[in-house]
Formats: sequence, C-alpha cells, structure tokens
Amino acid sequence: MVDADNFLSAEADDHFHDECGVFGIFGRPEAAAITTLGLHALQHRGQEAAGIVSYDGSQFHVERHVGLIGDTFTKQSVIDRLQGTRAIGHTRYATTGGAGLRNVQPFFAELSTGGLAVAHNGNITNALTVQRTLQKQGSIFSSTSDTETILHLVATSKERDITARFIEAIRQLEGAFSLVALTSKKMIGVRDPLGIRPLVLGDLDGAWILASETCALDIIGARFVRDLKPGEMVVVTGKGIESHFPFEPQKSRFCIFEYVYFARPDSSVEGRNVYDIRKRIGMELAIESPIDADIIVPVPDSGTPAAIGFSQQAGIPFELGIIRNHYVGRTFISPGDSIRHMGVKLKHNANRRMIEGKRVVLVDDSIVRGTTSQKIVQMVREAGAREVHMRIASPPTRASCFYGVDTPEKAKLLASRMSVEEMADFIRVDSLGFLSIDGLYRAVGEASRVDEQPQFCDACFTGEYPTRLLDLEGTDNVRTLSLLATGGQ
Amino acid sequence: MVDADNFLSAEADDHFHDECGVFGIFGRPEAAAITTLGLHALQHRGQEAAGIVSYDGSQFHVERHVGLIGDTFTKQSVIDRLQGTRAIGHTRYATTGGAGLRNVQPFFAELSTGGLAVAHNGNITNALTVQRTLQKQGSIFSSTSDTETILHLVATSKERDITARFIEAIRQLEGAFSLVALTSKKMIGVRDPLGIRPLVLGDLDGAWILASETCALDIIGARFVRDLKPGEMVVVTGKGIESHFPFEPQKSRFCIFEYVYFARPDSSVEGRNVYDIRKRIGMELAIESPIDADIIVPVPDSGTPAAIGFSQQAGIPFELGIIRNHYVGRTFISPGDSIRHMGVKLKHNANRRMIEGKRVVLVDDSIVRGTTSQKIVQMVREAGAREVHMRIASPPTRASCFYGVDTPEKAKLLASRMSVEEMADFIRVDSLGFLSIDGLYRAVGEASRVDEQPQFCDACFTGEYPTRLLDLEGTDNVRTLSLLATGGQ
Amino acid sequence: MVDADNFLSAEADDHFHDECGVFGIFGRPEAAAITTLGLHALQHRGQEAAGIVSYDGSQFHVERHVGLIGDTFTKQSVIDRLQGTRAIGHTRYATTGGAGLRNVQPFFAELSTGGLAVAHNGNITNALTVQRTLQKQGSIFSSTSDTETILHLVATSKERDITARFIEAIRQLEGAFSLVALTSKKMIGVRDPLGIRPLVLGDLDGAWILASETCALDIIGARFVRDLKPGEMVVVTGKGIESHFPFEPQKSRFCIFEYVYFARPDSSVEGRNVYDIRKRIGMELAIESPIDADIIVPVPDSGTPAAIGFSQQAGIPFELGIIRNHYVGRTFISPGDSIRHMGVKLKHNANRRMIEGKRVVLVDDSIVRGTTSQKIVQMVREAGAREVHMRIASPPTRASCFYGVDTPEKAKLLASRMSVEEMADFIRVDSLGFLSIDGLYRAVGEASRVDEQPQFCDACFTGEYPTRLLDLEGTDNVRTLSLLATGGQ
Amino acid sequence: MVDADNFLSAEADDHFHDECGVFGIFGRPEAAAITTLGLHALQHRGQEAAGIVSYDGSQFHVERHVGLIGDTFTKQSVIDRLQGTRAIGHTRYATTGGAGLRNVQPFFAELSTGGLAVAHNGNITNALTVQRTLQKQGSIFSSTSDTETILHLVATSKERDITARFIEAIRQLEGAFSLVALTSKKMIGVRDPLGIRPLVLGDLDGAWILASETCALDIIGARFVRDLKPGEMVVVTGKGIESHFPFEPQKSRFCIFEYVYFARPDSSVEGRNVYDIRKRIGMELAIESPIDADIIVPVPDSGTPAAIGFSQQAGIPFELGIIRNHYVGRTFISPGDSIRHMGVKLKHNANRRMIEGKRVVLVDDSIVRGTTSQKIVQMVREAGAREVHMRIASPPTRASCFYGVDTPEKAKLLASRMSVEEMADFIRVDSLGFLSIDGLYRAVGEASRVDEQPQFCDACFTGEYPTRLLDLEGTDNVRTLSLLATGGQ
Repeated sequence: MVDADNFLSAEADDHFHDECGVFGIFGRPEAAAITTLGLHALQHRGQEAAGIVSYDGSQFHVERHVGLIGDTFTKQSVIDRLQGTRAIGHTRYATTGGAGLRNVQPFFAELSTGGLAVAHNGNITNALTVQRTLQKQGSIFSSTSDTETILHLVATSKERDITARFIEAIRQLEGAFSLVALTSKKMIGVRDPLGIRPLVLGDLDGAWILASETCALDIIGARFVRDLKPGEMVVVTGKGIESHFPFEPQKSRFCIFEYVYFARPDSSVEGRNVYDIRKRIGMELAIESPIDADIIVPVPDSGTPAAIGFSQQAGIPFELGIIRNHYVGRTFISPGDSIRHMGVKLKHNANRRMIEGKRVVLVDDSIVRGTTSQKIVQMVREAGAREVHMRIASPPTRASCFYGVDTPEKAKLLASRMSVEEMADFIRVDSLGFLSIDGLYRAVGEASRVDEQPQFCDACFTGEYPTRLLDLEGTDNVRTLSLLATGGQ
Repeated sequence: MVDADNFLSAEADDHFHDECGVFGIFGRPEAAAITTLGLHALQHRGQEAAGIVSYDGSQFHVERHVGLIGDTFTKQSVIDRLQGTRAIGHTRYATTGGAGLRNVQPFFAELSTGGLAVAHNGNITNALTVQRTLQKQGSIFSSTSDTETILHLVATSKERDITARFIEAIRQLEGAFSLVALTSKKMIGVRDPLGIRPLVLGDLDGAWILASETCALDIIGARFVRDLKPGEMVVVTGKGIESHFPFEPQKSRFCIFEYVYFARPDSSVEGRNVYDIRKRIGMELAIESPIDADIIVPVPDSGTPAAIGFSQQAGIPFELGIIRNHYVGRTFISPGDSIRHMGVKLKHNANRRMIEGKRVVLVDDSIVRGTTSQKIVQMVREAGAREVHMRIASPPTRASCFYGVDTPEKAKLLASRMSVEEMADFIRVDSLGFLSIDGLYRAVGEASRVDEQPQFCDACFTGEYPTRLLDLEGTDNVRTLSLLATGGQ
Repeated sequence: MVDADNFLSAEADDHFHDECGVFGIFGRPEAAAITTLGLHALQHRGQEAAGIVSYDGSQFHVERHVGLIGDTFTKQSVIDRLQGTRAIGHTRYATTGGAGLRNVQPFFAELSTGGLAVAHNGNITNALTVQRTLQKQGSIFSSTSDTETILHLVATSKERDITARFIEAIRQLEGAFSLVALTSKKMIGVRDPLGIRPLVLGDLDGAWILASETCALDIIGARFVRDLKPGEMVVVTGKGIESHFPFEPQKSRFCIFEYVYFARPDSSVEGRNVYDIRKRIGMELAIESPIDADIIVPVPDSGTPAAIGFSQQAGIPFELGIIRNHYVGRTFISPGDSIRHMGVKLKHNANRRMIEGKRVVLVDDSIVRGTTSQKIVQMVREAGAREVHMRIASPPTRASCFYGVDTPEKAKLLASRMSVEEMADFIRVDSLGFLSIDGLYRAVGEASRVDEQPQFCDACFTGEYPTRLLDLEGTDNVRTLSLLATGGQ
Repeated sequence: MVDADNFLSAEADDHFHDECGVFGIFGRPEAAAITTLGLHALQHRGQEAAGIVSYDGSQFHVERHVGLIGDTFTKQSVIDRLQGTRAIGHTRYATTGGAGLRNVQPFFAELSTGGLAVAHNGNITNALTVQRTLQKQGSIFSSTSDTETILHLVATSKERDITARFIEAIRQLEGAFSLVALTSKKMIGVRDPLGIRPLVLGDLDGAWILASETCALDIIGARFVRDLKPGEMVVVTGKGIESHFPFEPQKSRFCIFEYVYFARPDSSVEGRNVYDIRKRIGMELAIESPIDADIIVPVPDSGTPAAIGFSQQAGIPFELGIIRNHYVGRTFISPGDSIRHMGVKLKHNANRRMIEGKRVVLVDDSIVRGTTSQKIVQMVREAGAREVHMRIASPPTRASCFYGVDTPEKAKLLASRMSVEEMADFIRVDSLGFLSIDGLYRAVGEASRVDEQPQFCDACFTGEYPTRLLDLEGTDNVRTLSLLATGGQ
C-alpha cells in the first residue's frame, strides 16, 4: 500500500539525513566555480538549498538559492556575480518547519571589523539560550538558524582581532559544529571539541581547501591533506595556515552513522574508506546473522556495499533483485482511491525473474520508521520469493539525533517501540537481523565499544549523548521566529 | 532621437520620483486585503516592490514582493498567508544601486519585547552615522535601508515600554520621515518635526487608518480624519488613539513638490486639494507667462491639470494634442542603428490633425534633465506646429532632494547649468516660461515665500535644506553593503 | 457595490473590444523590431497575446507569446530570433473560451508552394462551414481560429501561383477581414469587400507598411500613404506594389464604432481624425441633449475627447472630476464579505473637492451592461454632487457584433432590454442622454444616415448586419475543438 | 580533461538513446494518473518531454510539457485537467535540431470522423516522402515530427471506418514503429512488420494496457499478457480486444540493442529478462575475453549487470570502484581556463582505496564516441590502478541507427574509424575486449547469428539495415520546417 505522502512526490525515503555540507577555498581563480563543484560532490549531504559567498579583494558577493547545485549554481549569471579567489559554500537539507531563503547559508554580515561569512554543519545545542541573551542586549536576528547566533557572538565580542573574536564566540557554543568562515583577510575552519561532524583539509596547487568530505576534493583533483582534529581551528591567510586549539582537550566522539549512511562511499573520513567500512559491516553482519539463502539482494543504493560484503563473506551470489528508478519527481499528486490501494512501485521495482522461487536476503543500511521496508518486503514477496530475510547493516536506531541530523521524534522510530521479533513481524520477513553495536565498532576497526568512554557518538543507537542539550532542557523549545528577511518569490 | 535607455524599456521618464507610500490599519477583518487596496491607491508613490506585515493576535506574517501591488498582492495565496485584523504596508520606488528583496519594507524583527514592523516614507539623513555606532556595539544589519536603523535603535533602547523605546529611537533621527509601525499591541504613526512627508489619519467604521495620502482612504470608502501634525506620534491600541509630541516644536516645512507632481490629483494634502492647486498653478503661470497662441496642449498625464488651469485663465482652447500610450513595456530591447535614429514615439504621439499649422503652448509640470522635453518639442514640430511654446508649472529644479525622493545628481539637472534662455534653446522652443517661486507659493495659498523662514521645503528649487545633512558631510557617503539577507530567486 | 469579477482583477471594463491589430513591413532591416513598435502602438486593439513572423531570405521565424508587447517582444532573445527584412505581426484580445498559444496569430504553414503566414483582424462569418468541408477532404486543423481556415483554403487551392491561390481562397470568405500575409516573395494586404475593418498603407523610406491604424505609422515616423480600399488586395514584392480587386464591387460599410471607441484618438481612419470626430460627437451631443450644469466631467479616459467637445459647445467648464488609476492588476483576489460590500474604487476615484455641491455632467463613450456606469454615478453622488447627468457619446448599443469585436450576448446589453428612461433609473442619474444615430452620422461628416443603404456598419446600434451570418444560421454554432497543437505551460 | 560541453551540464553521456516510450490504458478510473505512473517507469526511454491525451466520454484533453514526468505530470492541476477512463501517453528523448512543444507527442487532431490521438516509438523512414505528397494535396503540417504524417494519412483516407482508415494509413509507412492511438471509441496498438521496437499488452483488473516495456506494468501492479507480435494491430473497445495483421508477414527483426542498453534491467522484452541477458552477456564476455585481474569494476550504472556476470564467470571479485553522483545539473556553466584543464569528475569518481595498486577490469555496455571511456580510464589510473583493462558488453558500434534511436553520425563513432587496437590506444587501456556478434546472439539464447536472415536488427553493429531508407536516399534529407504551432513561453 502506498500512502499519499510518497505518491510521485519528492524523495520521502526512510532514512536519517545529514543536514549540511560545507566547502571553502582560499587563493585560487574561479573560487566560486570550484566551490560549486565541491558542493555538487557534497549534494548527498543536503539537497534543498545552497549558498556561496565569495570575496574579490574589495567586496563580498552572496548568492543563495533553493534547489540542487546543478540547477542553480550552474547558471552563468550566478557564477559571474561571484567574483574573487576566495569563497565558501554550503548545501543544506530541508529541516523541519519553515525554511525559506533567509535560513539558507552561508550567513553574511558586515561587522564593524569588516565582512564575515559563516557556513555550518552540525547543530548548536544552546543556540536558543544564547540567542535570548543577545536579543535582550538589542541584537536583531534575521533568521531562525543557529548559525546566525555565531555571527552575533562575533559581532558583540569586545576583542579587537577577528581571530580573537571568533575564538571568544565559539567558546560559547555547545553541540556539534564544523564551521567554515570567510573574512576579508582570512578563511577559518573549526571542528567542535568532540569532532562530531567531519571536516577535512585539502590543497589544490597551493590553494587551501576545507570540505566536509574527501569526495569534494576528488571532484576537482585536490590533494587530501588531513582531517581537522577535534577542537581544532585553522586560520588560512595569504601567508599560510595556522592552527589553534581554543577548547579544553577532550576525547574524540566522531559520528559513527557517517560510516553507516551519511558519507559518500568513495569518501575517506577519519582515516577510513567509507565503502570499505560498509563492506566490512556487511561481512560482520554475515558472521553475526548467517542465513541459508539463494541470493543476496541490496536495497539500492544505500544497501549495496554491505550486500557485497555479505555476499563475499557468505558465499551467496549478489544479484540486483531490486531496480531503483533514479528519476524522482519533485511535485506531488494526490491519488484517488482507485490508485491509492494499488501498491504503486515508484522508486523500486522487484526484478521478478531473479527473485521468483528464491530464498532472498535483503540487505539495507538501517530501519527508521519501517514503512519503506514493509513495502519492499511485500514487493519481493509478490515477485514470488520463497523466503524473504532482512539484514540491517547497523544496530536498531532507538534515539533522535540533536547534532545536525534530521531524525523523526523518538516515538516514530520503529526500534524504540518494538523488539526485533516484533519488527520482523511488522515488516513481514522470515527473519530479521541487525548488526550488534560491538559488531559495528569491529567493522570500523575497534576491538569493541568502550562503554565508559565510547570512541564514537552512537547516540542514535544507544541514547547516550556526548554533550548536554541545554535548549531541550528548558521549558520552551519552540523557536521564536524572527522574520526580518522573509521574502516572497 | 531616442537613446537605448528608453527604447521600449521600463518607464524612464524625466521626473523626480517619490520613494514610498505607507499604509496601516488597526482592528478590522481582512486587514491585509484592505492594506493591499490602500497600497494600490498609493502605487504612484512607488512601483518597484511592496510589502505587508499583518498580526493575527499571536503571530506576525510578512510578505514582500518585487512588482506592482496588482500583480503580486492580489494572488489569493499571498493574501491568505496574511491573517489578522492589523496590518501595515509599504510600496517603494527603485532607488539607486542594488535593490533586492532584503531592502523591501516593512522591516520586521522579533525583539526581546516582541515583534516590531516598520514602514517608512522619507530619508534619514544621519542613518549611516547612527548605523556605524550601532555596528561598533555589535548590531548586525541585514539591509542597506535606513529604515532598519530605526529597528536597531528600538532594539537597543534601555527603556522597557515599547512606546518609550520608540520615542527614544526616533529622537535620534534626522531628516524626513513618515513612519507606520506595528507591534503585537499597537500601531504607531510618526511624522518628522518638520512634517516634510505627508501622513494622514483615517477611520473605517471604527478602525484607525494611517496612509500617505487621502486617495488611499477614498479607495476603501474610509473617512478622512486629519493630517498628522509635524512632529506628532500617534499610538493606536485596542482602547483608542493617543497623541505624543516627542520633538522640540518647529515650524512646518511640508514638501511643496508634493503639490507639483508627487501626490495624486484627487488627494488632499495638508488641507489642500492637489488637482485644485495644480489648476491654480496653471492659472498663475498663465498670468506670469502669457502667450498669444491657438491651443493649450498638456504633456500627459502630469501636465494636464495645470494646462486646464492655463486654458481657463488664458481663454485659449485646451486640446489633447499629444496622446499617451499607457501600455508600458517592462523589458529592454537594444535597437540597431536603423532604429536608433528613427525617433521612435513609444509613450507619446502628437495628434497631427490638432497641431498642424497651430501656435501650440505645451504645459508640463517640471523639467529635470530636459531630454524628454526635447523629444516632445521635436515631435510637435514634426507634426506641423507653427510655433511651439513651453510653460512649466513649477520653478526651475536646481538642487537634489535628500528627503526620500529619487533625483539625479545636481550636475544632471538642466536648470543647474543653464539659464532659462539656454534651456529654451536646448529644448528648441519659441518661448519657455517657468512659474516663479512666489507664484508657486501664491498657488498654494500663501501671499509669498517668507525667505527667512520658508513655509515649505522647497530645497529642489532654492537649494535651502531645512535640516543638516550629516551623512553627506562625512568623507564617505557610499553605503557599506551588508548582504546578510541577499537571496536568489 | 463591487462584485468579485473586478476586485483587483484584470481590466474588466464595460466596453466592446476590438479583437485585433495587424502590422506588416517589407524590405527594411530590423523588420521584427519595427513590427514590435507598430504592434505596441496598436496594443489598445488587443492586449492578450501577440505574434510576429519574419522572413530572412531563406527561412521563416515565428514567435508567439501571451502578454503585452512591451513585456514579451522587447526581450532581446525574442527579437534576435526574428531575423530578416520582412515581417508581419498581430496583437489580439482575449476571445471567449479557451485561448492558449495555438490560437495566437500570425498563423504559419509550410505549403507545397512555400511558407505562408497570415494575420487577421475581423471575423469570418462562414469559417465553420468552410472548415467542415475541408475536414471532410482530410484537412487537419490545429486551432479553433477562423484564420487557420484561410491557410487551408490557400493550401488546397489548385492554382499554381500564390497570388492566384490567395485570391481563390479569400473569395470563399464571408464577413469582416483585414488581412496581412507574408510569403517568401510577397507581402499581401486585403480588406473585405465592405471594408468593415480598417487597414492602411504606409511607407518608411521606401519600405512598404500595412497597419490597422495610422498611429502605428506615427510611432516609427512612417509616412501615411492611403487607406486600402474596400475589397482591395495589395501585393508587395521586391519590385513594388500592385493592386487587385478580386471581389464584386460593393458600397463601403466601415465600422462606425471605430470612431466611437476602438481606434486611438491620434489615428486617422478612412480620412477622418478620431480625436476630432470624438470632439464633434461631444458637440452634437451638447446640441441634442443640452443641460444646465456646473461642470463637464469625462469618465476617463475614453470619455475625455467627447467631454472636451461638449464643454466647448456648451460653454461649461471641463474638469477632471474623476481620476483614473492606470496601475491595473493582472491577477485576482476574491474578497471576503467585509470587503465585498465596501464599494471599492479600484480604477476610478471621484475628486471630491471638484464635485461637492456641483451639478455634474458625466460624459462617457457608450454603455454596454451599465454596471460600470452605475458604480461611477454612485461614486460621484457619494462625493457630494448636487445633480448627476449622464451624456453618452453614441446611440444605445442594442445588438451584438459578429465582425471581430468582443461583445456580450444581446440579452446582456442594457439598451436591448430597457428604454432610456429605464436606463436612467437603473444607473440612477438625474438625466440621461444618448447621441442619436443621425447625430453620430453628422459627427462623422454625413448629412444623415441613408437608411436604404447605410454608409457605415452600425449593426450594434441598429441590428442591421451588412452580410449574412452563415455559421450562426446553422443549428450548431459551438466550435469543434481541434487540439493538435495544444501545449503546456 | 573535461570540455565545456559537459561541464556541470545536462547529462551528455556517451550512449545511444532510445527516443521514446509509449503507454495507453482503456477503461479504468484515473486513467491519466495511471498513465503518468507508466510513463514514469519508462522515463529512461526519454527525458525531454512528455504528453498525455485522455478521453472522458465526450471530450479529449491534451497536456504536453517539457521536462521529467515527475516534475510536470505530478502537478495536481495538470492531472485534474486530464479527465476520463481512457488515456495514452508518450515520453520523448531530445532529438537533434529544434524541439519545442509542437513536436511533443501524443499528436491529436479532430478529424471528420472524430478525435484521434497517436503516440509513436520508432522512426518512419519514408515520412518526408509521404509528407511531400500530402502537402501537394493541401495538407498542412504543424510539426516536424514523423508522427503527424500518420494523422494526415488517416485524415485523408477515403475509408469510412476508423479501423480501416488506420490500416490504410499504416500500410503506407516504412521503418520502425510501435504506435498507441486513441479515438472516441477505441484504443489501437501497432507494431511494425519487423517488430523492431517493443510493445507489450497488459491487464489491470480488466482494463487493457499497452506499454513499451513490462516495467511500466509492474509499477502499477498490472499483469503482463504478452508482447504484441510483429505486424500486429490490436483494437481495444468497450467490448474487448481484437487482433489484425494488416501487413505481409515477415520474419521478426527485434532491436538487439534493447537488451544491451535501452530497456530497463527489470523489464522482460520478447520473453527474455533484460538483467538476466546482461549478466549472460558479461559471462560470454568473460569467456571470450578472459583476463587475469584483481577486481571487476562496473562503469555505473549501465555496466553493472554485465560486470556481475563477468565476475561470477571469472571468479574475480565485483567491487564498486567507481561511484556515480546521481545529482545531475540541468544547466550549463562555461568554465574558465583554470578549471577547464582540471579534469573535473562530475558524474563519476574513482574509489581510490579500492583501486590503488590493483589490476582493474572495467566493464561498460558500449563505446560510442569513446570520450567518456577515455576520462574514466584516466581517472582510474590517477587513482593508482596498476593495470586497467576494459571489457565492452557488446560488439563495436559501427553504424548509425535510423529506427528511432539518437545516434551520432557514423564518422563520430569510434569503432567506425579505428580497429580495436587503435581504440585501446585511444582510451589508453592495457587491454580492450568487445563481445563478438555471435557472443551477443548466444547471450540472447541463439546458437549464432544467421547471416542470410538475421534474427534481430543489429544494424548498429553490422550496418545491415532490415528496411530500405527512402528519405535518406533522396538528395534532400533536411526536414522542411512547418512552424504552424510554434509557441513562445
């Protein structure tokens, strides 16, 4: 059964979604065009809107557009307006509630010290609290984005030098943040003290680059230099690069879900190749949840690497038993009754000839609400599978993420209200297996999870958050809307 | 000869242009739709963009769009989003330099005291100076509009009550300003101490209205109550209306050009009917600059009332010797040589049969650069006029306006670099007559101009500015661009 | 009271509307840009859509767009595609029923003899009958326009030469038609045997021009040569111009309503200046329907010339007692009850100070449904007029037009169901006067109407149609829709 | 090196492209919404534009739009206009030269016998010849599409019954055609006598369906009934379905390239599952062109099934060594020199960690111009591959297709001007292997190609065309442009 929500509508799949990708380059002609390419490679981290700010030596240029990079920033007129050899950019996923251009990053403001642009991946967990304090002092917010808070903190700092002002500002932040900022003299990159979100440093013939993932370096043939360290702030100027550590040192807590789903398989994050980790996850899964079957079928595309690993480990053939239609509609049609109950297969179709009479193992990366899994299992059964087994390349996702990832509220997470057996019944499989949390840690190269001091942020699996969540603790977690810059079309 | 600048392009006529019209209504269903009507009546005060902010008792709604009211705010979806019984609106003329939605008014911000929306007609002549002070204290500007300065002054005020904060804010302003503001509890109207720009109070079955001109009351059948007094601030609440006078009392200096051209002929401003004043101007002109001729021909549409007055005074028939094409293109075509020199008559056409062999008196309201007058005279000559005389219904415009009117720099004003005789030569007329400054004062009902304390602002004719011009006096009068809210389409 | 139909909606005034204007030029660089100018001058003859076909010596280029000339054909890209020194163009009024681009003219087809483009002003009264015959022979229609019929008649002609084919085609047509056609070698102009619609010949430095009105010659500085004669067909080639008379000679029956309202006041049609005729109409009206009053007030803009004539004849001052707002919205808002009954004055506003306490004579060109007159009278009364008299610059319009004019069905014409006294009551005036039919004939220079052989088509006043109406006489007058070329967008 | 042509531009990949997909349904509520779903499943057969014609029992409705199905036909307003229980649809690939809405199918015309809509996949190889004859008889063409020819042939038929007229029409056609047509009483499906293009019959709870591929049945859960036979014409009415064979019987010559690339892997065409055939092709290739290597890497996505087959046959691991970015831009940016030479990896990125130090076998479906292969090989080398071998899952493509497939002219086909060795040098691989023509025939289940009477159309590989190519043989193969229905925006 298909419900109206995803009937030929924009991608409504059952996944967590990373909210943002960031990119910056300093000291290279066509900086904005290169940033466009970098953001295109990071498009999987956010498809709703994007922005680029460039600096041409005397002036800043800002362009922010709703839509895919390839549709908006590839217009000649847009790129022509973004003059300069320095640029930063941002791509974002639709977050809940009103969006609109005023929330599209990078944010830019002309401070008394000059222009400042900031692009942010993550989530400031005390943004509302800080914002209220600033408003009482007379600051006016023109968006509902936590990123604007950073600009106001820099603007109201009493320090004189922009680096000192920036340090004073980020020391007041809590949560997860990988930032790229641009001033008239400097490009700044920051990772939060726990290093929850990724940020890498690259080099293109002498021009420094900051990017969320290495695939954004590959697209332009830039050299990967290194990951920024947790708590590190790098400052790039015409004279070179310097490194600061403005926070108390802490143990790293990188987001382990980046390996499961967020990052692109061809990226290497924190020193590990994502495709390779996903294959290893599939192998661990085959060891932990073995099954006698005829074919291993990935739920495309996100389940494919784990399915290849599972197949290689289990010695069962890997087959494309489900075909994905990559042409996705952007608009919505509300079907009448005669179609609503037809079980429309918009995005995935079973390849009947491959499946008929077979014992099928479906491999997917995760289960969030379970609705998509339900439909896919039904489709595979209707195509004539003799048995349908599901193997999930991660532990059950039981808790929401507050670090810059779009997740449903906890009550909607299937694993938060059902046991594995109940989930198996719900999605109607003959067997269901998740990877264990230790199996996941093994796949990324650890012996096991160190429970007293976990090596990663795995809050979505365990509910153990590595920071306090200040705004959430207050009574009022609804954002006050400041509509200063709301515009029409 | 026509130049590329106005070849089938958007209206590029040779006039000063008022920058803005404002409107507000408090306590009436469909407040936004009524504001739309009010702004439609004020469309002549600004055709580039418009905005409306409404308040529905719990939330503010903001819509700002580029284009004519009748094209943008008449969409059902737009009006439907503007819920509430209170609304203020603004329509604006394209000012020099980059525009974009972020400069479209009303401005809105969520302050620590609640939401505040401000719409402004005029120009704050110390806005840059104030802005720099505010930026040093950490305020972030999201536009280049002087109106945003007012919001920041209110935001950073230490007073507790919004009325007191507003008073503290406007006391720091210099220049010309007629403001309409909306908070969750109040609608506020202000005129600067000299009352340079108009603002009237109206009543629609018990709902208070503020508007730039009375024609905005007429369109909805509202009752005209009175003009706001110079320096007056009215505060409308659910309980009624109260009046404040927060400034040092000064003699009124209303803009006399509102009578010459800006205001709509069916409006009454400062107690005088505009059409009636224009006819009187024409009569004074006929007395001051008599001429023996066959027909009086207005340059439509702005010269028409004065031409009627001239005709009645002189006893020479009034005839439509020039026909105006009201269908105006919005886009631009750059003609090749074969067309460039054809003398295309896009907007005005001589009615040859009326003009052939006649001694023609053309009546226009003013001459700015003189290029349009040149073309019109040539057209009338080519249509066979025996003599062409020009009578202008105002004194020569010799100086720029800094009070919210779009004027060319002084060097481009024909009257600033030529005598009347030279101008007559330049536009190639047999005789040219302007109204004297005293004639203008007589037409509006004064015995003559009191030079030591003029009754009106007539700076564009005399160069005597009624306020200091602080921002201009500094070395740097180029606005720093703050691009925080710049957006794409 | 205002009804939803014209609440800030596109111009919904109470007039007959001419459906089309045509223009053509042969042998001049930038022919399409010149055609754009010509059509801009003819914009009053049709505002919905326009098209231009040019020929560059080897290829035809076709552009057809919905919207005003000044918005669509002034885009550089559009004009750049219309290469060539020969072009014809068309501007059209929205006719009843579905429109869409496929009905926008000129029509073009590649025949076995080469390309042929046709633009048409008028209405073929036997088009459906001819179309059915052609369909039975296998012709496929791609529009519902009667103009396409002409192309099919030329296409299926057995004659070899295009002139002969064209003559064979137009001889099968009945009704009113002024045509401009373009082939790879020729530009052709035709007026129907009665000369119902206008068509003039002009000359621009040796390039021949065809246009609906002389104002389209004036805009580009072209010389007026002469009106085409009724039943005349001119053929322009590189060698010059030749004239044919393919029809039986008949007495001319030019549309007298062109003088009353359709044509632009600065045009001269059939040797008479339109503004001059309208003034004479006003004078005749003042003689036929004298009245003791204080001011003569035109209903702008169409009533203005007659009001001037009335004023001059009657010796009562002409005053702008009603001001028209030329900013017209294009979209629609459906008002709630609180606005619906407010009597919104979107387009016209009474100038209270001019009207208060006066005996007012309103002068308008015609009354169709009477609803607009009703509103205007009420507005003038509410502005304080002591007496309101209405004088109409034409006889009562009692019958529909089938010759290319958009008229309501007869039952909706006020004059078809009420006497003059009843109409006076309906619109609530103290007195109402129409011009007599003989008065109208006198104004255009005739001694009186020759009833047995009228000098003009005056069917809308008299119901006497100068041709048979074949399609109407059949049982089925609903057009069969052929959707071949329907498109999206 | 990347050239401007595909720098962030719309998909410019190096493949042949099928031009069209067709779909029809008869006797089911929401017929147009179901057709939208069917076309969405056929989107890979044409992404430029689409159209649907529905019939509601009394009227036909036509919608044609440029863009993806999911962007255009999923708008509620579009679907709402397509009332009725019968509908046919078409999706098309951009063909060379001017496109525009007037060439978007289905074509519709109101004939003397009633409405007729036709959607076509294939190419009529004598369309121009037939069109010229029809034009001489007076037919007017409103498009440059060969499909319109079919409508004119039906329109000019002297038969009385629509089935007989249709048969008379299609008997005059040469080339490849799978047609779906709709009249007020019937839905008609036709395959050309050789059955070059596919067309299948399906059933949805009693409603008959025609579709290019079975995946269009799967998406809506319809039952596959059978392929239409070559030369078969089915006529569906309210009473059921009847089958006609209006052509001389001939041996089938189905397009073998449908198996190689055009059809979707989950479709079954002519009784064979496409994914299965592609895997067999990979296996045959592994047998014919064995190679000692470390990993088998598909060029995604089209090379994937063959790579899986190759891997299984060769016992070498299948790995995702190249990652495809599915976010494709639609617009174009012309890069400056500093980017032009960077080797931008827009669509594919090598997964360095998988490839470094490895002997890599790349598997792709075909090579057309070779430019994409060149870039991919270079990218894999730069990622550190020790050896790069290329295996192509089809024979060299040496000749153009004239049966409804977009192919470059012969001179641009790499295989038409180079030997395999030269091609290997050109794309810089260590070895290059193509499948033999007999290997391809074996993969589809034949013992070998029967050269005197080949079982398939394999003209692109062999240059042996199964029909004459009448239009090509003439001196003038440039289409005469008939612009009747050209429209603007």
